[in-house]
Amino acid sequence: MLGWDPDPKELAAALRLGAVNQVLPSREAALSPGLADVYVLSCPVLPILDWMHRLAPVLTEGQLVTDVGSTKLAIAELAATLFNRPGQAHFLPGHPMAGKESGGAAMADAQLFRGAAWLFVPLAEENVSTQRWRKLVQAMGAHATDMQAVIHDELCAWVSHLPQLLSTSLSALLEDTFADDPEGRAALQAVGGRALRETTRLGSSPYSMWRDVALTNTEPIAATLLALEQRLAHLREHLRTPELRAEFERANQFRSRFRS
Amino acid sequence: MLGWDPDPKELAAALRLGAVNQVLPSREAALSPGLADVYVLSCPVLPILDWMHRLAPVLTEGQLVTDVGSTKLAIAELAATLFNRPGQAHFLPGHPMAGKESGGAAMADAQLFRGAAWLFVPLAEENVSTQRWRKLVQAMGAHATDMQAVIHDELCAWVSHLPQLLSTSLSALLEDTFADDPEGRAALQAVGGRALRETTRLGSSPYSMWRDVALTNTEPIAATLLALEQRLAHLREHLRTPELRAEFERANQFRSRFRS
Repeated sequence: MLGWDPDPKELAAALRLGAVNQVLPSREAALSPGLADVYVLSCPVLPILDWMHRLAPVLTEGQLVTDVGSTKLAIAELAATLFNRPGQAHFLPGHPMAGKESGGAAMADAQLFRGAAWLFVPLAEENVSTQRWRKLVQAMGAHATDMQAVIHDELCAWVSHLPQLLSTSLSALLEDTFADDPEGRAALQAVGGRALRETTRLGSSPYSMWRDVALTNTEPIAATLLALEQRLAHLREHLRTPELRAEFERANQFRSRFRS
Repeated sequence: MLGWDPDPKELAAALRLGAVNQVLPSREAALSPGLADVYVLSCPVLPILDWMHRLAPVLTEGQLVTDVGSTKLAIAELAATLFNRPGQAHFLPGHPMAGKESGGAAMADAQLFRGAAWLFVPLAEENVSTQRWRKLVQAMGAHATDMQAVIHDELCAWVSHLPQLLSTSLSALLEDTFADDPEGRAALQAVGGRALRETTRLGSSPYSMWRDVALTNTEPIAATLLALEQRLAHLREHLRTPELRAEFERANQFRSRFRS
């Protein structure tokens, strides 16, 4: 297992932890023809697109490129132009639905994918390399699910991007509201319990990754945000009416079915 | 320890679990003069106000009434008219900042208050009864903090009511969006991870309790909801601009300070 990362500290940590057997001396070294059977692009979506452009010309039939990026449509569309034709390497877009609010090799966790869904967007007939990669994913405890790229991006807007931006907005709002009020901040700290901790946890997520999600899934994300804004306004206008009960009942109904 | 609850099943469970030594035969039995030194009103805010009206005429100096209701201004205002004067019982409004998304005696947990804040709104000079109640609260592992009722209700709008209504809205929105789409619902179930689970967890909270929160803290809750709606709209309009970075940085800053 060969690894490369733009941050030498991350590379050193990955080597120390045994996540890779060997680190590559440079970005260019990763582009030597015949270097590996499988390439796993583990970075935000825009650098994934960049690596796809760089790798396509040096790889060949029988080699596999896959990724773990958060959105799939932009990647699937580019893959259709650069991979999966005779003489070209195979590209299988992927997305494990697991992660932590902060990254880095030191946060590695062998249990992270256990029980999680690992979404794939099959673009072409699969071969021995794709089957081997699917087996490895299964060995990590993940459940592979195949899905179209458009469906993936809309679904992820609901289950991942909306919760993230909600948590970011709430955290940023609290930061601004209590910025000039040390007493209020202390009270927030003393009084805030599990509800506040859970709804703001994703506030620690890094911009670097989410910028690319917002850029490559703008329309579906904007649609879910607008729907939630309207829902909150409706609730605000009905704090003292029976519609509040109806809204709690719908929420109870959702939670009674959603167990994971 | 004597207990009463409108639901006989809850009373039986509390007795079986040892949460009370004896159950009262009726609501009226709780109104016998001299029945107890300390009365703990553990129910939604409107029935707390009702119990205050019923208890005040039958209690006398030296007895203590306290509560664990979610909002404090309505309770403190009523207490000022019914308690805390010569010849009257003492009323000390209280609010433990701990709980679960569903209630009932069977959910009782001796560790629930460990490390949690227990807010008090002192209304009059305290006596032996209040000191004994404060010691019991401390023995359960909670940290007592005194606070004015208005400050309490504004702070709780931020740390508790807003996260709750956010989670209710998001859960209700997902319920409606996927109601007629069994395939989408299955995908939601398969794909939704910790982010979705945490941001919708409070969707299970019961209307019965939150109705009274919304009725007795309407203005502060409406203000926090409106602020969040505006924040989400701002984010939606800036999904592709550098303002997204600024928002993530504010959120990161909030979370770097908020650890509980």
